[in-house]
Amino acid sequence: MSVNNAMTADFLRSAYGGESMAHMRYLIWGDVADKEGMPNIGRLFRAIAYAEYAHADNHFKVLDDQKGDYTVAAGAVFGVGTTVENLQGGIDGELHEIEQMYPVYLETARFQNEKGAERAFHYALEAEKIHAKLFQDAQDMARQGKDMDIGTIYVCPICGHTVAEHLPEKCPVCGAKQEMYKDFPA
Amino acid sequence: MSVNNAMTADFLRSAYGGESMAHMRYLIWGDVADKEGMPNIGRLFRAIAYAEYAHADNHFKVLDDQKGDYTVAAGAVFGVGTTVENLQGGIDGELHEIEQMYPVYLETARFQNEKGAERAFHYALEAEKIHAKLFQDAQDMARQGKDMDIGTIYVCPICGHTVAEHLPEKCPVCGAKQEMYKDFPA
Ligand SMILES: [Fe+2]
Ligand SMILES: [Fe+2]
Ligand SMILES: [Fe+2]
Ligand SMILES: [Fe+2]
Ligand SMILES: [Fe+2]
Ligand SMILES: [Fe+2]
Repeated sequence: MSVNNAMTADFLRSAYGGESMAHMRYLIWGDVADKEGMPNIGRLFRAIAYAEYAHADNHFKVLDDQKGDYTVAAGAVFGVGTTVENLQGGIDGELHEIEQMYPVYLETARFQNEKGAERAFHYALEAEKIHAKLFQDAQDMARQGKDMDIGTIYVCPICGHTVAEHLPEKCPVCGAKQEMYKDFPA
Repeated sequence: MSVNNAMTADFLRSAYGGESMAHMRYLIWGDVADKEGMPNIGRLFRAIAYAEYAHADNHFKVLDDQKGDYTVAAGAVFGVGTTVENLQGGIDGELHEIEQMYPVYLETARFQNEKGAERAFHYALEAEKIHAKLFQDAQDMARQGKDMDIGTIYVCPICGHTVAEHLPEKCPVCGAKQEMYKDFPA
């Protein structure tokens, strides 16, 4: 893969930075959930961290021939609070990506006819919609002082599609086979 | 932990961004090394990725009460090449941190009397010196078309201290006990 236009390349670098930081803070917030006695919410954070890894990996690889040092400007959520607060951070970050960041990046990739970037942004956007919903479900439980009631969580390593309990025959976003999904068992 | 000064807080956020992106690209470059038939270099990349996770975790936690959204500007190396090229990217990134970034951040934390940030920057700086050396050793072998000859790699989860084969009684940087080290066996 590769990219020809500077604006799309900038957006890929920014998205790579944002996904890398999201991956990291979800691992940190997962530990907090474990310590608060919510291991299923901890596991949800780790599964979604893995999906963000897949997104970062896609963005990085579309940039594979852009070798060298760059200063990357990327959005990130900060703060270590309670699990209810951390889940709000997760929801806020995902909603920004769903409503603002990825729609603009995707529109730009289409406008500049950047096929690799278009696919990478599309994959991420579709996964983030699910992530926002899962974090909201988790927060509804955590507000009641309860852990989430959720079975095995599956993540597509190609596009980051995230699904609980019922594994599809193939990934509805990228078409990857069922057996490729990475599982996060209870 | 917490931080009172805006400049130190900015540097912590930038370092968090840089460490998160380094973590991610080392995982990606580790896969490349595996595919090139250099599993020990692949393992070195993964061990060092874990050390960068420890650094990102420290920076994020010093910022624990700085809740909310920020735009983070952070340096990162891009490109997916051969393992020799990827190791050069690793060396370049580590040397920038050793010679420029962390000395300035550390000096600022001391100047602003920010104890938590001072510790987090000190831990990272000490580990990066070892990382640059290990990547250089790996590249010397990879240039000859050979894998690295290296036993178990151990990483301190507190400060990211990275050592091959001979585990110290306690971490020479942060004092953590031997049994806390995470191992990456051959
Ligand atoms: Fe993502
Ligand atoms: Fe997400
Ligand atoms: Fe998929
Ligand atoms: Fe580091
Ligand atoms: Fe390093
Ligand atoms: Fe240590």
